[in-house]
Amino acid sequence: MASDRSIHITVINGNTSAAMTRGIDAVAQAICSPQTKLVTTQPQTGPASIESYYDEYLAIPGILEQIVLDQTADAFVLACWGDPGIEAAREITQRPVVGIAEASLYVANMLAAKWSVVTTLHRVRDMVEKTIAKTGLSQRCASVRTTPLAVLETEQCRDATLAALITASQQAIAEDGAEAICLGCAGMSGLDTALEAELQVPVIDAVAAAVRLAESLVALKKHTSKQLTYRPPELKPILGYSDGMQPSDLRHLR
Amino acid sequence: MASDRSIHITVINGNTSAAMTRGIDAVAQAICSPQTKLVTTQPQTGPASIESYYDEYLAIPGILEQIVLDQTADAFVLACWGDPGIEAAREITQRPVVGIAEASLYVANMLAAKWSVVTTLHRVRDMVEKTIAKTGLSQRCASVRTTPLAVLETEQCRDATLAALITASQQAIAEDGAEAICLGCAGMSGLDTALEAELQVPVIDAVAAAVRLAESLVALKKHTSKQLTYRPPELKPILGYSDGMQPSDLRHLR
Amino acid sequence: MASDRSIHITVINGNTSAAMTRGIDAVAQAICSPQTKLVTTQPQTGPASIESYYDEYLAIPGILEQIVLDQTADAFVLACWGDPGIEAAREITQRPVVGIAEASLYVANMLAAKWSVVTTLHRVRDMVEKTIAKTGLSQRCASVRTTPLAVLETEQCRDATLAALITASQQAIAEDGAEAICLGCAGMSGLDTALEAELQVPVIDAVAAAVRLAESLVALKKHTSKQLTYRPPELKPILGYSDGMQPSDLRHLR
Amino acid sequence: MASDRSIHITVINGNTSAAMTRGIDAVAQAICSPQTKLVTTQPQTGPASIESYYDEYLAIPGILEQIVLDQTADAFVLACWGDPGIEAAREITQRPVVGIAEASLYVANMLAAKWSVVTTLHRVRDMVEKTIAKTGLSQRCASVRTTPLAVLETEQCRDATLAALITASQQAIAEDGAEAICLGCAGMSGLDTALEAELQVPVIDAVAAAVRLAESLVALKKHTSKQLTYRPPELKPILGYSDGMQPSDLRHLR
Amino acid sequence: MASDRSIHITVINGNTSAAMTRGIDAVAQAICSPQTKLVTTQPQTGPASIESYYDEYLAIPGILEQIVLDQTADAFVLACWGDPGIEAAREITQRPVVGIAEASLYVANMLAAKWSVVTTLHRVRDMVEKTIAKTGLSQRCASVRTTPLAVLETEQCRDATLAALITASQQAIAEDGAEAICLGCAGMSGLDTALEAELQVPVIDAVAAAVRLAESLVALKKHTSKQLTYRPPELKPILGYSDGMQPSDLRHLR
Amino acid sequence: MASDRSIHITVINGNTSAAMTRGIDAVAQAICSPQTKLVTTQPQTGPASIESYYDEYLAIPGILEQIVLDQTADAFVLACWGDPGIEAAREITQRPVVGIAEASLYVANMLAAKWSVVTTLHRVRDMVEKTIAKTGLSQRCASVRTTPLAVLETEQCRDATLAALITASQQAIAEDGAEAICLGCAGMSGLDTALEAELQVPVIDAVAAAVRLAESLVALKKHTSKQLTYRPPELKPILGYSDGMQPSDLRHLR
Repeated sequence: MASDRSIHITVINGNTSAAMTRGIDAVAQAICSPQTKLVTTQPQTGPASIESYYDEYLAIPGILEQIVLDQTADAFVLACWGDPGIEAAREITQRPVVGIAEASLYVANMLAAKWSVVTTLHRVRDMVEKTIAKTGLSQRCASVRTTPLAVLETEQCRDATLAALITASQQAIAEDGAEAICLGCAGMSGLDTALEAELQVPVIDAVAAAVRLAESLVALKKHTSKQLTYRPPELKPILGYSDGMQPSDLRHLR
Repeated sequence: MASDRSIHITVINGNTSAAMTRGIDAVAQAICSPQTKLVTTQPQTGPASIESYYDEYLAIPGILEQIVLDQTADAFVLACWGDPGIEAAREITQRPVVGIAEASLYVANMLAAKWSVVTTLHRVRDMVEKTIAKTGLSQRCASVRTTPLAVLETEQCRDATLAALITASQQAIAEDGAEAICLGCAGMSGLDTALEAELQVPVIDAVAAAVRLAESLVALKKHTSKQLTYRPPELKPILGYSDGMQPSDLRHLR
Repeated sequence: MASDRSIHITVINGNTSAAMTRGIDAVAQAICSPQTKLVTTQPQTGPASIESYYDEYLAIPGILEQIVLDQTADAFVLACWGDPGIEAAREITQRPVVGIAEASLYVANMLAAKWSVVTTLHRVRDMVEKTIAKTGLSQRCASVRTTPLAVLETEQCRDATLAALITASQQAIAEDGAEAICLGCAGMSGLDTALEAELQVPVIDAVAAAVRLAESLVALKKHTSKQLTYRPPELKPILGYSDGMQPSDLRHLR
Repeated sequence: MASDRSIHITVINGNTSAAMTRGIDAVAQAICSPQTKLVTTQPQTGPASIESYYDEYLAIPGILEQIVLDQTADAFVLACWGDPGIEAAREITQRPVVGIAEASLYVANMLAAKWSVVTTLHRVRDMVEKTIAKTGLSQRCASVRTTPLAVLETEQCRDATLAALITASQQAIAEDGAEAICLGCAGMSGLDTALEAELQVPVIDAVAAAVRLAESLVALKKHTSKQLTYRPPELKPILGYSDGMQPSDLRHLR
Repeated sequence: MASDRSIHITVINGNTSAAMTRGIDAVAQAICSPQTKLVTTQPQTGPASIESYYDEYLAIPGILEQIVLDQTADAFVLACWGDPGIEAAREITQRPVVGIAEASLYVANMLAAKWSVVTTLHRVRDMVEKTIAKTGLSQRCASVRTTPLAVLETEQCRDATLAALITASQQAIAEDGAEAICLGCAGMSGLDTALEAELQVPVIDAVAAAVRLAESLVALKKHTSKQLTYRPPELKPILGYSDGMQPSDLRHLR
Repeated sequence: MASDRSIHITVINGNTSAAMTRGIDAVAQAICSPQTKLVTTQPQTGPASIESYYDEYLAIPGILEQIVLDQTADAFVLACWGDPGIEAAREITQRPVVGIAEASLYVANMLAAKWSVVTTLHRVRDMVEKTIAKTGLSQRCASVRTTPLAVLETEQCRDATLAALITASQQAIAEDGAEAICLGCAGMSGLDTALEAELQVPVIDAVAAAVRLAESLVALKKHTSKQLTYRPPELKPILGYSDGMQPSDLRHLR
């Protein structure tokens, strides 16, 4: 039996909404191990919510900056379903980075033969499908079910969100063959228990899944591979970004 | 922060070699959380090692019996790379079942863009490729590298095993583009640290990965979906198996 | 023109229901060549029907034993849609082994651009999809249509079975684009003519298809490859199985 | 046991070389059932051999004409690896049409986990890969190995052909993981026994495989589906082709 | 800035209907660059429309002959959705050959995340799916929507055609997630503007797309690769075709 | 024949190196139609070259800003192989956006059965493979060949770059079956002619290909679909970006 020293996890909300950061933090604090010291941060730049490719791309520099600024964490959780910028995050630190999308899919894969992702606005379908494809698990995916919910509504209108998720999930189960449900937005975090009671199938809270997987990677003493793809960025000037963001400075990151 | 009650994990060696069971147990005990109570068992029937489809299929009834006999565990780890019988295991209990193959691939996926599986005898290539395909992650797999190593040799001849693994892994890295290595046999458990020191890329010990992921599923309070595929077996007599193995008896399993 | 000597075919029912064995035998005897001597057997151990992964895995040792006990056959037909244990069967003998699932798919492929598999209980969908994927023909599959039929009902309640198959097949044709129907259960054997009359598309009886393909392999004088994957099992003790099932004894099999 | 009436099979050589037609006929006559009446024909128009897309497309009208002219056959074998025009052949008759490419792949699939196709000139690689893809079996294919052999050389220079096939097959086995070999040209027909003796893995003679599978389809009393894709061609004039080739005349074909 | 010399484009209607040739020419003349000299031809042999594999295969020799006869064109447009014989066309000339199917898919890919192909008779679904697969873009395809429209009706009954296309396209958008529409038949050419006005999504006229892409290839000074697959046909006699169609004569083509 | 009015194309270099912008502009001006007014710009923020995911993500906001600032162009060319941020670019304008990666692959697809991408540093292999996969054309890709070349070296050291490209391309042709070569970096633009002379297979200059395809889309009067995925970004504040970059301002873009 291992004697776990205290683990530091930093959870990074992908958007700049403080209310969503607090919501994510509440879920993350509730699920993490007693030994874990967990903080939840948010970018200083970027959109209030991520609902388009444009939002996602403008969010990434601020997300990466959170990693650059954080020398304490043993591992990072990227708390936006879509895992925006995760390949770049893995380039700038050796410390494990876990995306909540991938984490939720791995957990679903261990609990059900087929699962669906239930998520926000209809327009994000293509983004969600590409995220699943990136992880490699498209074949196990029964369907992606979108809703009329904007991201910030999921945080602010919990009852309406729950109702919309129940409807979409029941369709996924009845019509698409889903045997478990992944909640495809960090704003939906915390609704898994209520939803599970209603649906009688496993419902995966992506933030919770990612926190536990990040702890696991630290316990396993694993680091991101620096062999090829995730090597530190090549040296060069990058205009319009702060000193700490220059490749030459990134070399000092652990 | 969660206050984890004590978690019980049962690790099931897939074969009937007591020495391998002890080796697996040592690795599992060393990596599990301090709060976890972990036992390692082995089937009462089946082959001394699993190196063919024939071995695998004759091992599965005994593996499933270990689950039937165990009412204490909160989750099971199936400690044979190949995850033999895991779909059936998920049918007969609601408690999470984690295969060491799938667990190692999920961990590799979080650490490297491409990984290789390094494993035993050349003849198992097809089995290993099918295991990866079942998990859905074939596209992220750089290669499967087989060796002249029999399963029990990996346990008994540690130096020769390490040497063979180094050779095969270096080929995977240099020729196939691997950026991390998954050890594709429970008998190789415990060699990851030495191998990692040599190769300078992450090396995934599948048993260790699965123990931490099983703990995570329990902490997340998740159970296997009983919606469709993993429902309890239909009622019917099954000739030649003990009472506890009859579908009518399985209904009492939690 | 070849002068066919008498060919011996052994058809192995996958379950332990004598009535189903008789039903399969009737279809197989009716379709085999006049020169063929055909016997249908069933395992001494295993479930009365195969409707879950658990059933399937507990059936396989008994199925393999039927091959071990049979030194007369020139080829084997594995008469359970799902081809349970077929890779292991190919390891323990050089004589061709034909699964009824694969045989029916090859025949369908030669008759129609797209086909559907119509089968038993809803819960077997995942098993059926994996069987098709194993054969490699998922892309040609229009759909898998499940029914409320338990396996033994297909044998016992022929009218209700026929009615359910007509309904499911008509849906497959009208909604999924199926141009031929594969009957996805050995218990449905013998219903192809009645169904074909109703549907006006080819309906493949999997047992009949496999018997003719097994004869073809014998006529072609082909044996299972022993190059790598299907080599005889490695030598080792296997606990809990009879003497004949030990790898050292399997070496005497032709 | 079925009482097979005499079956009529017409084998259609895809090219206009009489010597190749005779070679194909010899193999086909030697392998067909004693009850089968088999004739081998060749198109009246088209190339002396098929080694490019151009050759293939100019061969197809003549191949289809052979079907139009033949009201006697119960089934057709399309004896050019590439199965040229087979979809159209299936439109103009209900009688089964078996391509030698697909037949050889189905047989290989029943004998080996992975197989390679060994064939003629390097330039046909793309055609061969597309043929395998059309059948749906690319995943089971270990490799396509081309040679410097022109099609007519395979018929005329048997020793050199055998030598080239041995070399290419040994590379496929040693380097690509092939466990069986498909001979990817009708001109190679008859060399399987000699090659098998040398290689010690199953070698599939595509013509022989197709003859037996065509007999099987007739014995199974199956016809090509006329549900959608393979319906008779729509009525319309077709300039430059003989009367019998007009869609209005095709309606009289059985 | 390039000083474009006059470019000669030959558009080849795939069928022998003069009315359709005129319709295609009107669209092609309207969209080509002012500097381009464009002629539209049709085969001297072949079907009046292409609605089956049989039609397609009997059309190809005549299509290829149009290329053989044309020493003036700098590039060819193959104006039948299905791009019949395009690989052979690329073998017999170095001048670029653009199929209207592939051209329309590339254009759709640059305008929309997912698109559907809306086309003629239900029976062509399989042909259309294979055409998309050949191009490699199946994953971006939301659906193939067929209609009751025969090919020649699309040319002759413009109002009914437009109505049927609107209905099918609206279903593709609402039910399948299409974000753009490809018109899957040369006979539908010219209807894109009216359809676009109705649907409010991009509608791709395949003939127009191909003409502009063919011009682009000429402007880029690119020729078809003669490295392997598209080398000139091997020398051999081809019975039943005119002198100019013999491989020895093709060597003189530029 | 169309009477093309003057078309305005803006080519956006993905990095902030003025020398590379000039090199791209020279190629683009040389290939564009005489009627086209073409300007080449570069972002005001971002890395001097793009050789990692980090570089790519920090480049995208500046690239998108170039589109926001440009109300003149009729179409945009995104001149960085990798097409960074192209989905977001398509959200913020209706005017066509063509990536040089996708353009080069479409052109290659029309000229060769299989092609390879030859590109910069070994570490970009994963990025390049994902770009090809995003376009949907992985199956047509013979290989990705990386070199020791940094991006800026390709611009600055033309002889060494040419030598390295020749070596890598020859390997792709001889060992991987490539029949055409795509130059996988905007910095390699202009080397296609010299390379083609050496290799005797088509070499695609990605910038040139994209310019002509962008002109084609304008000539075809096509706009990006606003149906679902590429709708304008949802309204919300985005911290740390200039006024013009706010979603509310994007609504004014044409």
